[in-house]
Amino acid sequence: MSQFVFFNPTRIVFGNAVINKLEKEIKKLGFHKPLLVIGKGSVKRNQIFEKVVSQLEKLNLKWEIFEGIAPNPYDKKIEEGAQKAREKGVDSIIALGGGSVMDAAKLIALNTVEKGKIWDYAGSFQKKGKKPEKALPVITIPTVAATGSEANPSAVLSNPETKEKTSISGLALYPKLALVDPELTLSVSLATTIDGIIDIFCHVSETYFSTELKTPIPDGFTEIIAKTILENGKKLIDNNFDIEARTQVSWASTTAMAGFLGGREGGWPMHAIEHQISGFYPHISHGQGLAAILIPLLEWNIHHHGLGKIKIFIKNVFGQDIHTGESAMKVFHQMLCGLNAAVSLKTLGVKENDLPIITENILKLKGNKENKLLNIVPMAYDDILSVLKKAF
Amino acid sequence: MSQFVFFNPTRIVFGNAVINKLEKEIKKLGFHKPLLVIGKGSVKRNQIFEKVVSQLEKLNLKWEIFEGIAPNPYDKKIEEGAQKAREKGVDSIIALGGGSVMDAAKLIALNTVEKGKIWDYAGSFQKKGKKPEKALPVITIPTVAATGSEANPSAVLSNPETKEKTSISGLALYPKLALVDPELTLSVSLATTIDGIIDIFCHVSETYFSTELKTPIPDGFTEIIAKTILENGKKLIDNNFDIEARTQVSWASTTAMAGFLGGREGGWPMHAIEHQISGFYPHISHGQGLAAILIPLLEWNIHHHGLGKIKIFIKNVFGQDIHTGESAMKVFHQMLCGLNAAVSLKTLGVKENDLPIITENILKLKGNKENKLLNIVPMAYDDILSVLKKAF
Repeated sequence: MSQFVFFNPTRIVFGNAVINKLEKEIKKLGFHKPLLVIGKGSVKRNQIFEKVVSQLEKLNLKWEIFEGIAPNPYDKKIEEGAQKAREKGVDSIIALGGGSVMDAAKLIALNTVEKGKIWDYAGSFQKKGKKPEKALPVITIPTVAATGSEANPSAVLSNPETKEKTSISGLALYPKLALVDPELTLSVSLATTIDGIIDIFCHVSETYFSTELKTPIPDGFTEIIAKTILENGKKLIDNNFDIEARTQVSWASTTAMAGFLGGREGGWPMHAIEHQISGFYPHISHGQGLAAILIPLLEWNIHHHGLGKIKIFIKNVFGQDIHTGESAMKVFHQMLCGLNAAVSLKTLGVKENDLPIITENILKLKGNKENKLLNIVPMAYDDILSVLKKAF
Repeated sequence: MSQFVFFNPTRIVFGNAVINKLEKEIKKLGFHKPLLVIGKGSVKRNQIFEKVVSQLEKLNLKWEIFEGIAPNPYDKKIEEGAQKAREKGVDSIIALGGGSVMDAAKLIALNTVEKGKIWDYAGSFQKKGKKPEKALPVITIPTVAATGSEANPSAVLSNPETKEKTSISGLALYPKLALVDPELTLSVSLATTIDGIIDIFCHVSETYFSTELKTPIPDGFTEIIAKTILENGKKLIDNNFDIEARTQVSWASTTAMAGFLGGREGGWPMHAIEHQISGFYPHISHGQGLAAILIPLLEWNIHHHGLGKIKIFIKNVFGQDIHTGESAMKVFHQMLCGLNAAVSLKTLGVKENDLPIITENILKLKGNKENKLLNIVPMAYDDILSVLKKAF
């Protein structure tokens, strides 16, 4: 194991019906005037919004609302939210929604205090991004099991002008509290649920394949999370309202990104590559983009590095003994087929002509000083482009 | 899964040689005058003490030392340490040692601020213990992989007059920082190493067997930790200086108690029972006491509850299919034999006449309002005594 730090100051309250603890938790945190951040209104179509608002009303405090966060939140929307937060003099943020809403809320919390252009925090190898230092306290209430944003220090931000996506991280972005109530995810469509499962799968497997170091505990934890989401994903395809299955997937989602899997360095660049796909094509969901590149990247890495830990991963997660790259890819392909998520960039609507500029964006935002992308074998421009072409 | 809270504000810095980060970390925390708490001097016989002191000296700050914490730290020693801390005007505590030293340091940090009798925090069903509210900030530097005290909110305290042991818990007892450097455990004897492995095994398995709820993630994490420590325990029996094995056991120790395994209620009363054995007989190590009662408690629970999750635990941890209680006990017995830790209370020097008073102490300190001990089937006086007699 390499040296690493585990630090996660977010208080995570998990379990069915924990949404009802919001009132008590707000009292404990001493919020006087929160800004409730939501998406485009889906929480209003079920009882979730009401459950939150009724507790805010009981507290007899002033609160404000900022609505309309769309998937892939972008800089102007964040700055608009922060502007409102300052104008209304709120002292805290409550995020009620999926990954985009939670990411937006964390960035609004930051931008409210530090002002300025939120895109200035975007880093790259050419330019060091601003470091988040101070933010309003945030409560996250996830309605989708996917990004793990509810209890981590990161937020993804899009720039519609340049079609780039970036990830902003810093201790200041840790939510104070995450209320993770699996029942809230019952309202989510099967497509979004599966996107979430693929996202979680990539979160945990990215770092697993990153090294040859002996790391039995984080590796074992990874295998458990992967097995759990795949088993329960199948159950949700049969019955999208299986609360038992949703509970396991919700905890997997939070756990995957809460720092419990530390001890391995680096990682496959699944997210680094995908962010610039859905950044360029906002109609593509993050989960779809990941599904499209998973096997091409696997193939590239097997070709350049060998099977490495993939063999043991497949043994422990899928119960299959494999000996060739071909059979490894087959296992992953079957997994995607089983989740109804075997897609290509072409079927997702990507134009082949755009692959070079997407590749440039990937290196611009995530390349190192040698203009290569972090991977078990670092990837240059042509390598990345070849993976994208394979994924097309 | 039941509702639960994950909250662990301790910053854990893990890995070989992280001890060398102490200087930088103290600066970051802004300590001006720490009290270094150590045991009976074993850290002075190797280079560990020097490594810490040289960094304190470089910082050019004033520091004090409190030495002589013996295994099973007791109230008077804690109060003496706190007295010194107040007299010298220290602003922080650094614990360098095993579980006893870390527990003592956490309690000294508490008693320095809150004063009074430290035993007043001991709770029981007859008497509600005082709640820890404020403590000096603590850095833990474990030299043994066992208790997980480095990154949890608890400390075990003995009372030599009444021969009782209690566990004191509260958010104020979370260390600010844990520097977990597996290399420091190289100096530990094989006997203490094995004690630690049994302690970790009981920490993770206690809650595993506590419920029939579906909890695949904490259960899977438990199995991974159990497998990891048993595999690496065997390696350490062959070579006590195997740093790779020590690294895995160290991370297992911290992980086991850091809250990563939440989601299950209750637990087997391994620790609740054992604490009053080594509390009564301080020459018995915690690990030895646990080893003595493990199989008798297993037998009692199988008899009163059936195999339950034990079957799947044995399948996943030991790779064996078992169908009877007899064969389950055989697996656990073989495990203890493999660790050279198959002991009885009699061989440990316990007197049979003392078993009733030990049973009374167990119920006094850990019994519920019905004077029963928490377990998958709650245990009354006669039940506990029967387990102790079987362990004799």
